[in-house]
Order: sequence, then structure tokens, then C-alpha cells
Amino acid sequence: MTASAHTGGAVTADHDLRSELTEFYARQMQALDAGQAEQWAATFTEDGVFAANAYPQPTVGRAAITEAVKAAAAQLAADQVVHRHWLGMLAVYPVDEHTVRTRFYALVIQTPKNGVAAIHRSTIAEDELVRGGDGWQVRRRDVTRDDL
Amino acid sequence: MTASAHTGGAVTADHDLRSELTEFYARQMQALDAGQAEQWAATFTEDGVFAANAYPQPTVGRAAITEAVKAAAAQLAADQVVHRHWLGMLAVYPVDEHTVRTRFYALVIQTPKNGVAAIHRSTIAEDELVRGGDGWQVRRRDVTRDDL
Amino acid sequence: MTASAHTGGAVTADHDLRSELTEFYARQMQALDAGQAEQWAATFTEDGVFAANAYPQPTVGRAAITEAVKAAAAQLAADQVVHRHWLGMLAVYPVDEHTVRTRFYALVIQTPKNGVAAIHRSTIAEDELVRGGDGWQVRRRDVTRDDL
Repeated sequence: MTASAHTGGAVTADHDLRSELTEFYARQMQALDAGQAEQWAATFTEDGVFAANAYPQPTVGRAAITEAVKAAAAQLAADQVVHRHWLGMLAVYPVDEHTVRTRFYALVIQTPKNGVAAIHRSTIAEDELVRGGDGWQVRRRDVTRDDL
Repeated sequence: MTASAHTGGAVTADHDLRSELTEFYARQMQALDAGQAEQWAATFTEDGVFAANAYPQPTVGRAAITEAVKAAAAQLAADQVVHRHWLGMLAVYPVDEHTVRTRFYALVIQTPKNGVAAIHRSTIAEDELVRGGDGWQVRRRDVTRDDL
Repeated sequence: MTASAHTGGAVTADHDLRSELTEFYARQMQALDAGQAEQWAATFTEDGVFAANAYPQPTVGRAAITEAVKAAAAQLAADQVVHRHWLGMLAVYPVDEHTVRTRFYALVIQTPKNGVAAIHRSTIAEDELVRGGDGWQVRRRDVTRDDL
């Protein structure tokens, strides 16, 4: 896809879409970093898939996604470390009225209590999102760590 | 607040709002990092408040905000260090036609002359903004450093 | 220019412009980091100029821009290092219907294979872009490294 592909077609609709998704991701990441496991899981579909090249198998379904974040948040609290997930360079590829694909970079910034902040991970990710009655949800996310 | 709360209601207006605020923050941060103290202070209301968990008391009013940035810029120049403030993961919560609350992450990237760039601070911040005849202004900002 | 300058005038058009440019930059950076030299070069005008304070002379024209990225991508592959270019704090200054100037921050995040991600460069950049039949293209980019 060329860099200018997005500028053709239904421009206004696409701009609304980009704005919606940008807000969606901001709130999704804030929920994750606050350890709000249910709110994080609610940003995925009921059968949502979270796959990463760092793990042998994807996490499938809201219940499993909720548990994974609860465990991660408990570990961070025990370690007295704060994580901040930053998304950037968000490219939006509309599929149809109810489906969109995105490709973006994500950083994890790690700060130990009384310590120095640093980049923990640099990744690139791809989402498939669907629009329901309650807004956008991730049907599948694939995260690729740059170091692996 | 759920991750999808933003997608209901007056969608177009909200998208314009997000765009306005994104441009506002870009210019506000560039003014700060360029040491343009008056331009930075003008992005706050006359009685604007800048509070941070790193400081015992908030900075109150444009005159005090101007002086604080002048002092910080002079110190950076003396140390031959460049700071870049990056805002991200901006979540926008409209209050009424003239008021909006935001919650976002902010990094300070520090680069010494002839040295290596690194993260200086990782923070989360909340703003209350009001719209005047001259555009948006911050009435109160609360910054929380991740390391404290 | 004041921080609120953008909020006056043709608001809707400006918001579409910001959205278009944000998408443009996301795709441009992803093309660069994927080593897609022709797609990267196609985001510049045929006579596009890439200037940086790190280099004695600017790179001029798509052919030279293509070769420069091919060489950089080959070196990164040989070194087993991944680069991610992040743009942020994008300020948009419309000139006329077909021309826009922007000013933004850019980071290069570097990750060695099996290594730790870190900031490689912190920069500030200014673009002049023109709109053609195929979307926005950069006519001139000036990148200033914070360490020099």
C-alpha cells in the first residue's frame, strides 16, 4: 500500500475513524497500565485474540485476557515498577463499515520506584478491530518485539 | 469510564476537539522546549495552576509560570542539555462547550551536547482546559512522576 | 506564532489536514523502517530535499533518497539492529491549499537483536509539503539532531 493511499476516497469518514481509534487506543493503554483488567479486556471482543512473538501461544478470549493482565499488574506492583505503553505511528486501513485493520509501533516505558525511566520494549503491532454497539473492539492483535 | 465512552454522542464535534487539542499540545510543548516562556505561559489561564507531585506547592498564575520556565531554560542552557517533552495517549473528556478534561502520558527526553539521548522522566498528567476567545488554555495541570 | 493560532479560521479543513498528515507520516515512517526505499522515496517530490545538521550536504532528488535508504537499511541488517522512527508533537502550519509547513519532534529507537531498546537520536524537524494528485509529498525536510 502506498503512503498516499489513505488520502483518496471518503476522506471525512476516514478522519473520524482515525480520531475514534486514537481515542480508543489512548484509553485502552491507560486501562492496561492502571491494571484495570476488566476494562482492558472489554476493549477486546468476547473471543478476542492477543498474540505475540514473545509467547508460544496466543491468549484467547476475554477471561484469559483479564487473567493475564491481573497477573502482570500484580507482578509490577510487587516489583514496584510502573509500565507505560505508548502507541505511535498509527496507520489505519479501513476494510468495511464495521472492520478496520491498523499497524502501529508500541513502546513500553518502565520506571522503577525511585529509579530511572527507560525503554523496556520496542514493538510493532497489527490489529483487526470490529465496531459493535459499544464502540471499537480488538478481534485480534499481533505484537512483534523488535529484539526477537 | 469505559474505553468506548468517547464513541457515543456528538462524534464530529469531539473529533474536532481532539484535533484542536492535539495541535494545542504540540505547540505548547514546542514553546516550552524552546524556552519561549511568555508563549508557554500564554497557554495557561491568567490564574492557571501547574501542580506536580515532585514539588511541595503548585505554581500559580502566569507570572510565576513564566518565571519558572525562564529559570529552567537558563539551567538547561548552562548545562548544555536539550529537553523535549513528548505527550501521548491523550484521552479527551468533554465537560461542556467551554471546558474539557484530558489525561495523557508525558516523557521528557534529555540530550546533552555531544551526548546520548535518554528518557529523563516518565509521567502521567491531567489537565482542565477552558476555551477563551484566543483558543484553549490550561486552567489546571497535575503532573505525576512515575518514579515518585 | 501563538499556541492558539491554529484554532482560528477554517477549522474543519484544518482538522482534515492534520488527520491526513498524521496518516501520511505514520506510513512514511513505517516504509522507512521496513527498508522500503522506493515507497519512502515516493513520499518526497521528484526533486525533494532531505537536509540534516548531521550531514555536510543535503540529499537531493528521489534517486539519491532511494539510494541513501537502501544503504542505511543494508547496514542495519548487517548489524542486526532494528530502527523505529517516532514522530510526535506535530504542529501544522497551512500555507495555501496545496502547501503546508510542519514542525515536529522525531526519535529513533534502536533495538539490537536479543538486546535492549534505547533512544538512538532525538531530533526536531521541519517539513515543507505539497499536495499532488497522489497525496502529500515532502518537498524539503530539515532535521536537527539535539546532540549536535
